[in-house]
Amino acid sequence: MMAVFKKAILPFGFQANGVSAGIKKKAKLDLAVFYSQVPAKASCKFTANKIPAAPLVISKKYLKDNKNFRAIIANSGNANCFTGAVGLKDAVAMASFLAKALRVKQKSVLVASTGIIGRILPIDKIQQAVPVLVKGLSKQGIDKAKKAIITTDTFSKEITVKFNLGPKTVSICGIAKGAGMIAPNMATLLCFIFTDANITQSALDKALEIAVDNSFNRITVDGCMSTNDSVMTLANGEACNKLIDSGNNFIAFVKALELACLELAKMVVKDAEGATKFIQVKVSGAKNFKEAKTVALSIANSNLFKTAMFASSTNVLGRIVAAVGASGVDVKEKDLKISHGSLKKKEILLSVSLNRGQSQAVIYTSDLSYEYVKINAEYN
Amino acid sequence: MMAVFKKAILPFGFQANGVSAGIKKKAKLDLAVFYSQVPAKASCKFTANKIPAAPLVISKKYLKDNKNFRAIIANSGNANCFTGAVGLKDAVAMASFLAKALRVKQKSVLVASTGIIGRILPIDKIQQAVPVLVKGLSKQGIDKAKKAIITTDTFSKEITVKFNLGPKTVSICGIAKGAGMIAPNMATLLCFIFTDANITQSALDKALEIAVDNSFNRITVDGCMSTNDSVMTLANGEACNKLIDSGNNFIAFVKALELACLELAKMVVKDAEGATKFIQVKVSGAKNFKEAKTVALSIANSNLFKTAMFASSTNVLGRIVAAVGASGVDVKEKDLKISHGSLKKKEILLSVSLNRGQSQAVIYTSDLSYEYVKINAEYN
Repeated sequence: MMAVFKKAILPFGFQANGVSAGIKKKAKLDLAVFYSQVPAKASCKFTANKIPAAPLVISKKYLKDNKNFRAIIANSGNANCFTGAVGLKDAVAMASFLAKALRVKQKSVLVASTGIIGRILPIDKIQQAVPVLVKGLSKQGIDKAKKAIITTDTFSKEITVKFNLGPKTVSICGIAKGAGMIAPNMATLLCFIFTDANITQSALDKALEIAVDNSFNRITVDGCMSTNDSVMTLANGEACNKLIDSGNNFIAFVKALELACLELAKMVVKDAEGATKFIQVKVSGAKNFKEAKTVALSIANSNLFKTAMFASSTNVLGRIVAAVGASGVDVKEKDLKISHGSLKKKEILLSVSLNRGQSQAVIYTSDLSYEYVKINAEYN
Repeated sequence: MMAVFKKAILPFGFQANGVSAGIKKKAKLDLAVFYSQVPAKASCKFTANKIPAAPLVISKKYLKDNKNFRAIIANSGNANCFTGAVGLKDAVAMASFLAKALRVKQKSVLVASTGIIGRILPIDKIQQAVPVLVKGLSKQGIDKAKKAIITTDTFSKEITVKFNLGPKTVSICGIAKGAGMIAPNMATLLCFIFTDANITQSALDKALEIAVDNSFNRITVDGCMSTNDSVMTLANGEACNKLIDSGNNFIAFVKALELACLELAKMVVKDAEGATKFIQVKVSGAKNFKEAKTVALSIANSNLFKTAMFASSTNVLGRIVAAVGASGVDVKEKDLKISHGSLKKKEILLSVSLNRGQSQAVIYTSDLSYEYVKINAEYN
């Protein structure tokens, strides 16, 4: 039995909060904390971008050095990326300020940032805000925290999945931000997942790998891979369920985690900058999964395809054909079958069959509108 | 001595013409012929798209079967792509109609098409138009021909380069069309080049390979690889120069051909759909040319970079960093140097140094504007 709630409900033992530290203009919420009252296991996935932001460098280091985690500090409005040695010092400082206020070890704090690249963080403002941030920690604080991590998002992405393991209920709660610079490998966003599951480190790592591959790695808005993408998961064991390892109850946990991630990923696409349509590109009849995904991404990332979808243009067929051929996969024209529902609808399923094998892949994407250009030309 | 004219002046022995066959709406010019009064050698480069249009399939066949060429027939308004067996028959018919009217061998005629993908050619209209097309052949006919090959172009791309070889003057004249669906491998456009050079087949092939690599393969508008891209070159020997082979006078010929191709390629970018800026992305300090080109293309194809350029936004720095990191090249943040002139200008040089080697590459691109979305949403 699995229950899904379209709202963030923090599991046992977690608290959160969000405040305005003055990083963004206009006193918007821009600094968030997530806290586990007991030590938690952490598992994370980061961008494959070769110039990762400072908080990713620091978080990766802490994940290597440490086994038990207590909190995450995240800011929006500034990516703390391409900020050199100062940026690294600032990311450490963020962890340090929070660790002191919470009286936990510095290395038990993970750090995340999102926003404009190449600007130095106003670290003094963050330092000043941390005590207030910590003082306000509560279960309901997740509602402020989810607002404090957004940038160009027009709505919060949040989900809670609960499922039974024997006599116990395990809860998985996720929130995400992201609306542009979204491309797989891995999805270009921040996502924080909290679960009270009692689970081994290796099972948690493996489950996150599978869940991310089948969700955030299946979406693309603009094919632009971010420097700051992070999915951070904390599992604190407070559900007191029988230990989940890679054998026992693993499938049930993966299913719930994957569902949470997929729902969040779809919300990111639905909130894509300027998007008017949600498009599911399904490529079947491929020789293998990689080939199917390559073709699906070639279509989903084609600006000409995306503008045609925005216009509900019948000319879209040619653009799909061109994108399939441009993928490099050795498709034969005579084997190619393309079908789609009404282009006027808000949600569109595009089916492409290559008729050269048995594998398939699905990619979720959006159209390309005037509004995308406007948002990205004016964002500053 | 090399002389460059920003106008198409057909070399000795060539004629051309353009008419309205009724393929496009509104009686626009849409059918062109290019004719060599004596047999000419041909060398061509075609798209790497795995679903090439029918005229490419037929032209490739003729190039394999035949050594001497007399003419090219090209239409706009319909790409004759994804049109199956009918499309192949129609491409053969185009060659056949022209061959009969010119009284030359069918296989000495090359065929090119550009326009909407997935629609059957109105072949009867083409058949009816061919006699008029041929009757009007003249040196000055190039001015109609260059208009008959365009689609969303706002101006004609044309160039003539002349250079001396001993006592003789060799002339190279090129025209091109292309404004969207432009990405390297190879450049997404039609380009027709006519030269009166007396040159061996192997030298002509080698020269075109080099010239295209250094011109059309260096431009990107939207990263979308077309199904119809063709560069077709005819060399008829009428300049009566001493034979150019891969040793004798090869460099002089390549230099002139490369200049012609590069000027045409730059014009394509300047006329890019909705473009307000011409951007030269120069990546240096790479380990090898391929690496430099990979990084330059990653920047030039980034929608976020292109929208920031459209807005002359100072936020562009972060987007360049993200695109460099997304290229997959193992660049170190501390080694990365980025500089550019005023973002308000119409022509911008962006210099990126990776500081990890001695190689460099230049890619030409445009910005991404509301107008791009408008043109591509409404084109039909």
